[in-house]
Amino acid sequence: MQLSPALTLKKVAGIINAEFDGDPDFEISGINEIHKVENGDLTFVDHPKYYNKALSSAASTIIINKKVAPPNGKALLFSDDPFRDFVSLIKKFRPFEHASGMISPTAYIGEGTVIQPGVFIGNHVTIGKNCLIHPNVSIYDHSVIGDNVIIHSGTVIGADAFYFKRREKFYDKLESGGRAVIEDNVEIGACCTIDKGASGDTIVGWGSKLDNHIMVGHDTVIGKNCLFAAQVGIAGCVNIEDDVILWGQVGVQKDLTIGKGAVVLGQSGLSKSIEGGKTYFGSPVQEAREKMKELAMVKKLPEIIEKLRS
Amino acid sequence: MQLSPALTLKKVAGIINAEFDGDPDFEISGINEIHKVENGDLTFVDHPKYYNKALSSAASTIIINKKVAPPNGKALLFSDDPFRDFVSLIKKFRPFEHASGMISPTAYIGEGTVIQPGVFIGNHVTIGKNCLIHPNVSIYDHSVIGDNVIIHSGTVIGADAFYFKRREKFYDKLESGGRAVIEDNVEIGACCTIDKGASGDTIVGWGSKLDNHIMVGHDTVIGKNCLFAAQVGIAGCVNIEDDVILWGQVGVQKDLTIGKGAVVLGQSGLSKSIEGGKTYFGSPVQEAREKMKELAMVKKLPEIIEKLRS
Amino acid sequence: MQLSPALTLKKVAGIINAEFDGDPDFEISGINEIHKVENGDLTFVDHPKYYNKALSSAASTIIINKKVAPPNGKALLFSDDPFRDFVSLIKKFRPFEHASGMISPTAYIGEGTVIQPGVFIGNHVTIGKNCLIHPNVSIYDHSVIGDNVIIHSGTVIGADAFYFKRREKFYDKLESGGRAVIEDNVEIGACCTIDKGASGDTIVGWGSKLDNHIMVGHDTVIGKNCLFAAQVGIAGCVNIEDDVILWGQVGVQKDLTIGKGAVVLGQSGLSKSIEGGKTYFGSPVQEAREKMKELAMVKKLPEIIEKLRS
Repeated sequence: MQLSPALTLKKVAGIINAEFDGDPDFEISGINEIHKVENGDLTFVDHPKYYNKALSSAASTIIINKKVAPPNGKALLFSDDPFRDFVSLIKKFRPFEHASGMISPTAYIGEGTVIQPGVFIGNHVTIGKNCLIHPNVSIYDHSVIGDNVIIHSGTVIGADAFYFKRREKFYDKLESGGRAVIEDNVEIGACCTIDKGASGDTIVGWGSKLDNHIMVGHDTVIGKNCLFAAQVGIAGCVNIEDDVILWGQVGVQKDLTIGKGAVVLGQSGLSKSIEGGKTYFGSPVQEAREKMKELAMVKKLPEIIEKLRS
Repeated sequence: MQLSPALTLKKVAGIINAEFDGDPDFEISGINEIHKVENGDLTFVDHPKYYNKALSSAASTIIINKKVAPPNGKALLFSDDPFRDFVSLIKKFRPFEHASGMISPTAYIGEGTVIQPGVFIGNHVTIGKNCLIHPNVSIYDHSVIGDNVIIHSGTVIGADAFYFKRREKFYDKLESGGRAVIEDNVEIGACCTIDKGASGDTIVGWGSKLDNHIMVGHDTVIGKNCLFAAQVGIAGCVNIEDDVILWGQVGVQKDLTIGKGAVVLGQSGLSKSIEGGKTYFGSPVQEAREKMKELAMVKKLPEIIEKLRS
Repeated sequence: MQLSPALTLKKVAGIINAEFDGDPDFEISGINEIHKVENGDLTFVDHPKYYNKALSSAASTIIINKKVAPPNGKALLFSDDPFRDFVSLIKKFRPFEHASGMISPTAYIGEGTVIQPGVFIGNHVTIGKNCLIHPNVSIYDHSVIGDNVIIHSGTVIGADAFYFKRREKFYDKLESGGRAVIEDNVEIGACCTIDKGASGDTIVGWGSKLDNHIMVGHDTVIGKNCLFAAQVGIAGCVNIEDDVILWGQVGVQKDLTIGKGAVVLGQSGLSKSIEGGKTYFGSPVQEAREKMKELAMVKKLPEIIEKLRS
């Protein structure tokens, strides 16, 4: 999430009532969760396990619950609860805005685009030219839709990231400050959900085609010309390169990469990154040929064991 | 489903035109399907295999298709088709009511709750304080939503139980007389379905967080602070204790229990109850460590067999 | 897709600007993709691998990208891009029509049918008697719904077929000219998607009952009295005979047949046709008993190998 205009370290420290170490006029140009940080961003860290990762990340400013010295060129904000303070910043700069009707007056809709009845278009949404949005689609605030995009009924673009921190007695929600971005020439089937980024963008890339009932988690980035069959489920922060094909009901865990041109057969489950240009099957997934051999061997087991016995 | 005021045995016998054995003024305070019966309830049984279960259940009155003597303290109604008569009672006391608009005038909506556009709220629905109901959500009649609940777009609360009796030439529907109950501080993602109870309540417990595309079947009871990832499917009459985590695309069959704090890895399938406090994987599910060992052994099979041969 | 009135070969050749071989007055009574062709239909073929299949199919007229002689009783249209020309014909004879409101004035709705709020009913839709269409359902143009049908909230009937041709730099869409047809006494759960046929009909047969989150692909034909549990996904062009039961999260690949009365256990995956009257399990699917034996054997492997070693 970009801040424009940028803020100063001193200003942010005042908002969350925190001590800081750094130039009071140090510039903060964005607020981003650790998976998506860029230079100039503010992020947070609250677990010793991740201190190093945060302090050596691209982020320029870090909210942290330990008094350490700021690394070169960075600033620190000290907080007893960095998660709480990070969330309060998201809420301040990306506040929930009530809808005033089915189509927000702050939405921009390009020429030639058809919006069918029952479609909700939230505040600050941008939709390109020559799109077709079918009935009863819901598009949350700040979503960005390109040109020539088709979205089928019941689909939800930009719902909140599923991102919670376990507290002792309850789950605490990371408010989502990011966006859902659908590039040109994408088609999304019926009853799909493309969540917004936690703080960055969830992206469905140019020309990709999604069948029905597909889930795309927060901050996942899908390349160009991908093809996903029905009921595919993709967790958050996944990186899917161009020309990837996922067949029906494939499940993809968070934080991994699927290489260019990979093909994953139906009902497979990915818990690790896979290389491009190959075909995969199984849960957990393997190369399809290897998996097929295994399945054949298991089928022949009784026979093999019998032979070994005699 | 509670009856208030309670009815007498004689009254109910008159409605379904049945003979009975018991005090004509015997009190019937609820109508419930066998999985949910309590003292004072009327239930039904029509298969010899289940006669004993029904007759020894908590139900006080039973519609049955065999002339037997009522157990101590119970009353019986005799019918050639107990299912048909049970359904006719549900229909009489929980009739379908036409909606008069998107938000029923008989619905109660608490202070601070935001209802976004395109939301349907049926008759006799109760929604607590400070909830946020996103666009195009549908909430069926009699549903109960607590305080601080968030429900994302496209989600359907309280659709009918999927409960049919096979007749010779068709499936006969058990009309649903139950409710969907969402407790305080729950968040439900986009395109989820939480069915109403067949006669009792389907419950999503305090503070639980559900991702997108999740199915919760009729009469299932989910405890506090559970966390379910996208595309989890839970059948009817499941009992899920507190702090259970189900990862993406997990499937749970009907009538079983998941113990407190159990963690079930993605795409697993549960056909039996599992103990709490452990991690599970596979379809059918096993303890995760055990399953991982099995998978490793299958991978090494060619090598092992080669060794045994030589 | 039927054409009424029928067209002549010469007329169609003029529309797509193609040379032809056949009687100029040769009659074309329908436009159908190869999976659904009948006598009198026009179809297309653009890959040498499928020339014979198309030329020997029931289709009477074929758009083809090779100059060959027409088989007996058939006519040919020659095109450098049969896919493009086929799509242009679909678009001409089944054009997209803007909705003028939530319920089209060209829709027919039978007596006793209840349409709840937020339902979209497209152009030329037919709905029979005594149906109940729950809130926020979307029914695309040309869909046909029988009598006594119940459709739950969020469900989408008749969205486009997921059918794309890979071009060098992008996926090209086959516009859908077919319909979704729901026969009498069907019940469809919440958040289901029943796609329209690519050019023929997708059919949910008499009395079948579908739970929530079910996907039925284009041109799939489901028989009478089938029962599908939640989150079942069925690809395109599948043929499911009567009395088939699919339990939760079953996945079915395209172009196959499930025999009468087959039962498929939860999470199974079908990549081949299966015979009726049996019970199946696994991904890929096997007869359930066989699969259970395999699973038991894998569990005993460490023990078996130990024995063989000693």
